Amino acid sequence: MGETREIGVGVLGYGGVARVHVHAILRVGYSMQPPLRPVLVALCGRTASDVEAAAHRYGAPAFYTRWQDLVRDPRVEILINAAPNDLHADPCIEALRLGRHVLCEKPLARNAAEARTMASAAGTAGVVHQVSFNYRHVPAVLLARRLICEGRLGRIYHFRARYCDDSLMNAALPRTWRQERVRAGSGAAGDLASHILDLARFLVGEIAAVSAASRIFVPRRPGGAGDEEVDVEDAVVATLEFEGGAIGTLEASTFCPGRKNLLWFEISGSGGTVIFDLERLNELQVYTTGDADLGGFRTVLVTEPTHPYGAVWWPSGHILGWEHSFVHQLDGFLRAVAGEDPARVGATFDDGYRCAVLTDALLDSASAGRRVVPEA
Amino acid sequence: MGETREIGVGVLGYGGVARVHVHAILRVGYSMQPPLRPVLVALCGRTASDVEAAAHRYGAPAFYTRWQDLVRDPRVEILINAAPNDLHADPCIEALRLGRHVLCEKPLARNAAEARTMASAAGTAGVVHQVSFNYRHVPAVLLARRLICEGRLGRIYHFRARYCDDSLMNAALPRTWRQERVRAGSGAAGDLASHILDLARFLVGEIAAVSAASRIFVPRRPGGAGDEEVDVEDAVVATLEFEGGAIGTLEASTFCPGRKNLLWFEISGSGGTVIFDLERLNELQVYTTGDADLGGFRTVLVTEPTHPYGAVWWPSGHILGWEHSFVHQLDGFLRAVAGEDPARVGATFDDGYRCAVLTDALLDSASAGRRVVPEA
Amino acid sequence: MGETREIGVGVLGYGGVARVHVHAILRVGYSMQPPLRPVLVALCGRTASDVEAAAHRYGAPAFYTRWQDLVRDPRVEILINAAPNDLHADPCIEALRLGRHVLCEKPLARNAAEARTMASAAGTAGVVHQVSFNYRHVPAVLLARRLICEGRLGRIYHFRARYCDDSLMNAALPRTWRQERVRAGSGAAGDLASHILDLARFLVGEIAAVSAASRIFVPRRPGGAGDEEVDVEDAVVATLEFEGGAIGTLEASTFCPGRKNLLWFEISGSGGTVIFDLERLNELQVYTTGDADLGGFRTVLVTEPTHPYGAVWWPSGHILGWEHSFVHQLDGFLRAVAGEDPARVGATFDDGYRCAVLTDALLDSASAGRRVVPEA
Amino acid sequence: MGETREIGVGVLGYGGVARVHVHAILRVGYSMQPPLRPVLVALCGRTASDVEAAAHRYGAPAFYTRWQDLVRDPRVEILINAAPNDLHADPCIEALRLGRHVLCEKPLARNAAEARTMASAAGTAGVVHQVSFNYRHVPAVLLARRLICEGRLGRIYHFRARYCDDSLMNAALPRTWRQERVRAGSGAAGDLASHILDLARFLVGEIAAVSAASRIFVPRRPGGAGDEEVDVEDAVVATLEFEGGAIGTLEASTFCPGRKNLLWFEISGSGGTVIFDLERLNELQVYTTGDADLGGFRTVLVTEPTHPYGAVWWPSGHILGWEHSFVHQLDGFLRAVAGEDPARVGATFDDGYRCAVLTDALLDSASAGRRVVPEA
Repeated sequence: MGETREIGVGVLGYGGVARVHVHAILRVGYSMQPPLRPVLVALCGRTASDVEAAAHRYGAPAFYTRWQDLVRDPRVEILINAAPNDLHADPCIEALRLGRHVLCEKPLARNAAEARTMASAAGTAGVVHQVSFNYRHVPAVLLARRLICEGRLGRIYHFRARYCDDSLMNAALPRTWRQERVRAGSGAAGDLASHILDLARFLVGEIAAVSAASRIFVPRRPGGAGDEEVDVEDAVVATLEFEGGAIGTLEASTFCPGRKNLLWFEISGSGGTVIFDLERLNELQVYTTGDADLGGFRTVLVTEPTHPYGAVWWPSGHILGWEHSFVHQLDGFLRAVAGEDPARVGATFDDGYRCAVLTDALLDSASAGRRVVPEA
Repeated sequence: MGETREIGVGVLGYGGVARVHVHAILRVGYSMQPPLRPVLVALCGRTASDVEAAAHRYGAPAFYTRWQDLVRDPRVEILINAAPNDLHADPCIEALRLGRHVLCEKPLARNAAEARTMASAAGTAGVVHQVSFNYRHVPAVLLARRLICEGRLGRIYHFRARYCDDSLMNAALPRTWRQERVRAGSGAAGDLASHILDLARFLVGEIAAVSAASRIFVPRRPGGAGDEEVDVEDAVVATLEFEGGAIGTLEASTFCPGRKNLLWFEISGSGGTVIFDLERLNELQVYTTGDADLGGFRTVLVTEPTHPYGAVWWPSGHILGWEHSFVHQLDGFLRAVAGEDPARVGATFDDGYRCAVLTDALLDSASAGRRVVPEA
Repeated sequence: MGETREIGVGVLGYGGVARVHVHAILRVGYSMQPPLRPVLVALCGRTASDVEAAAHRYGAPAFYTRWQDLVRDPRVEILINAAPNDLHADPCIEALRLGRHVLCEKPLARNAAEARTMASAAGTAGVVHQVSFNYRHVPAVLLARRLICEGRLGRIYHFRARYCDDSLMNAALPRTWRQERVRAGSGAAGDLASHILDLARFLVGEIAAVSAASRIFVPRRPGGAGDEEVDVEDAVVATLEFEGGAIGTLEASTFCPGRKNLLWFEISGSGGTVIFDLERLNELQVYTTGDADLGGFRTVLVTEPTHPYGAVWWPSGHILGWEHSFVHQLDGFLRAVAGEDPARVGATFDDGYRCAVLTDALLDSASAGRRVVPEA
Repeated sequence: MGETREIGVGVLGYGGVARVHVHAILRVGYSMQPPLRPVLVALCGRTASDVEAAAHRYGAPAFYTRWQDLVRDPRVEILINAAPNDLHADPCIEALRLGRHVLCEKPLARNAAEARTMASAAGTAGVVHQVSFNYRHVPAVLLARRLICEGRLGRIYHFRARYCDDSLMNAALPRTWRQERVRAGSGAAGDLASHILDLARFLVGEIAAVSAASRIFVPRRPGGAGDEEVDVEDAVVATLEFEGGAIGTLEASTFCPGRKNLLWFEISGSGGTVIFDLERLNELQVYTTGDADLGGFRTVLVTEPTHPYGAVWWPSGHILGWEHSFVHQLDGFLRAVAGEDPARVGATFDDGYRCAVLTDALLDSASAGRRVVPEA
């Protein structure tokens, strides 16, 4: 990799999902051979001692406690923004203004208005801008997309998806920024349903209307000031109507016992059906019409050389983990920076904005009790 | 069974689902030992030669081509109405007027108004009246109900259900009465979603609001007069809001490749989750909280002696078929007639009416684009 | 069914598996329309009051407590022998001598020598003789056979099968005739492995050699005389070598927690693989080579009209139960009696004898610690 | 990680499984925080240009084409031997003689005699020596072991395992060293069954006797000299008898269509059953007795903080890939080198030797047609 140009990456955040981005930076060169070699040049976080330890641990030569310092560090050619939702807009916009390429965690923003500002800044910056909708980069998801794009599922009739876990069922869990509307924008809608909405657009197409209902099951949680109000939804359900004529359902909830990281979808068309489940992310269930006496859902283990990313890692049947989606995503990002991303799979800030519009539509519909047509 | 009193049963219909009811009549005595012994006394159908052949085949001593003759035959103490939807109301009401016990196929009627008339007639008749929501009688469904009723799932948060097959995807299939609104009342809503709505009420409780969308994917089909219009929905999706606070999704569609008879539901509460799938009807997936390092969905094979109907049939692990639900249902019906049905599991005409109200609400919501609160 | 000739059936036994045979007699006419109409004419059991109650319950006009009386009753044209293993040979041989058609429960006999005598008697009797290896008649098993016979699995390399339950794990269960070698002949080998051996021959072909090991995990059980010795194996495992070159494994055990009625096999050939599991008997898992990027095991729900027995029962996806295999078996038996059984699927006494030879080979191998070539 | 002492690692091999070891070296520090920081100091391979490219790619400062040079490089404190089987003994023994710690790929040697020499050298060297039986380090396998060691499965009755793929079915595949007895020692026995034998010992205990059969399905393959003979088995099956009384079956084959990397085992004891499948390596199926009406196999997603390695990686439900087993293994190895490996999970050369004895026993039994008791 000696001849491959290095490119500096700064990460806003160091724990949680930031840790997975760091992992991708350290590892993408091992298997993917991107045209640019990412180098972690700085981390940024609120608590100096913690961010310093993380920088030390991951080999970052610098660390900051103010995002402005991170963004302005001239070694930072790429900003990965893995901060809470209320710290997406300002750092990203400043980085874009400075000509940095930006990969921002999802949801892009707390609402559509904020997202629009960000997408606008990205549009004028002339750099690469992506939202970390990392599930686009799972091989089985890409295989589903291949089937749909090649017409092998025919005309799409149905899309159903759920993103469910049981992470917030314990009412004794303290309130975090994720349960504050002012900081998070929304709850299950922005955090979980946004992945579904992005995949729906990625796989099936634009959504023309939504009808939703939502619930806050635990309205108060322990916090710094004793019991504090939870003002974002624990769960949201919706019907979806696609521009292409398909209809579907959506569910996002953190109150589903036994579901740990269930991002599940099932898409039916005139030619067949595909089913995906993130807890078994190496598999795609596929049914194709016309199989005579052997019709049935196949469990396709998406690890063959003919599958997306199948030739990059291990032999057939040697499965990948969740974090590989971030490695694939970063590889695509780097290829885009190098001007060679023919697949263009990554979600842009424009995708992030469309997703925010749809997320707002879910909340508006749940509140108003009527079908909502997302703004164009 | 010699001492058990015989009771005459007349069946309106002889093919399709009527055949399964006949099977139950012939077989319920073998394993269930109901307090009354049903005897098939007459069949009724439109085509004399066909209904005669069926009567001969099943050992019925009489057959008719006019439902009035069936209903008035004094040997008919129980009417099983397995006719198309537009022949539910009149024969049932006349039978009730004559004091017959009535078991009517679902949906009870083409719409709520018609169902109300029938439920009213049933209420004044002083007889046993049930709607053939046969899935209430599947052992795994009853086990799910046991868990919920005993509080083992805690407070219910979520209900999701789908009834999907691929039976109408072939556009060359001719239009039948099921695709005519005037005869069927509705399409997937009345035929498939009605089962879901009944199970939702049976398992979780009353539904306070629905928001729906529907589609006709194949708007014309071959018929007697060349191409004929299809004016009922091929598919319907909805969000559900329960009086008890739970929310959920519903899907009913005949355009789902690979799904053959998928009646699936998943119910989550604070204590756990259950999952049912009619294509594997002997199993209930159960997750209970509090299992320490062995938490996980269990595949409970609902064939143990401790399970509903578990001691009636075969040893553990020797599975039942779809038709057993009809045998169980008839057993319950006969016990109700004999005045000894402590479980009262069967759906009454009042349940059938509530279900019709909800079905209408689905269609109204899909049409109006707003949340609909079903009439009380 | 009026024109169909009736044929009298006598059943030796009335509880346990005899009950399932009675069920088949009462029910086979409903769906299968065999060319002869079986009529239950007599039951036979040891305890007069019990067998009388059963005869009454199932509508048998006669009952006996001595098998000789049953066999000699001139109305008994078909004998179904569902007695314990030590009552297979004498009643069957006498029935054959009298010209009765005989359907005998498995294993045909307690050992190969006894089975040879029975097969010999059957050969000279000129009647229909079958062993109740009922799993040959499961639609998914027949679909597997179709694939193999048509060459769609290519050259067979591997056969693996298990018949496992947890029925005898409780050491407090009393000893029955099944745990006495003198009465049962063997334990898991004759009771469970015999089904495997028959399916192996039915699906793959003759077995050329076996190597086995066996265990008695609970050597004494409560009995009439206090603790009594168990002298038959609780479990047996073996390797199998087929004449055609395939190799495989076999396991039969009643000490498998969680397994309730697991009769599982997986067969691999150069063209693909099939997997069957009796607890999900409506399904066949099928993998075929050459599926490009969609290779994977398919879950084929064997309820389509194109499947074995698929057009006889209910619509697609409406599953069958365990007892249907007995109904199918009886239908085939009756067709054989009527001289019209082109499929010839049922196991004959010759098959029963071959199976007994193999069962003996398992026990001999386990005892001697060497590969055993079954006698020709 | 600054204060952590670095330790030099040399890898014999650079493609195939060597690549996974290199990956573990580069990555173990990210999540596991071992007490020593491994640094890749040299690679060794036959073809200079290829090994140079690999060294460059993975950042190794040196490369060699003779294993002697690798082993003698003073920076190499740890040797990872990922060479073909015929290059296990000499390099390992020389490294041990020089005081290097050694991690050798499985099987340890081509036969028991060779393995004994290696284990003997390891015993006298006073260093850390392990065999890369990496599946010991899969979280679900460790959870199974926890259940067994804590007595939660009770007395063990049964062990069954298979290692199956379809990698060699294509007869046009050229012969490699793996199909030469002189180089590989054996075929499926050493390559696949060795993993099973190691897991059997790791989980259940010592094996007292085996009876096996084997096959070469494709006896000649294309090679440098035209068609060349294959003299190692494509498949082996066996019965296993454990010292503790359990019995079981084993299968290892590369002729199983649809199986890509199926390392499956099922272990039953008086307290329950566990099932593992490498293609779904994040899951353990568990059945425990005593669950009243909710008995059933649970699908435990082994990603909880309470699970082995559960707190090291991602949140619940975010699954790991196949290569994580190598990272865990290296972490354990490094801890052993640092004198702090309380778990002692890794397989030693003594384990490798026992495994070779058992592998030889499989081959001897298959050849001799009798039960073989492995040498002590």
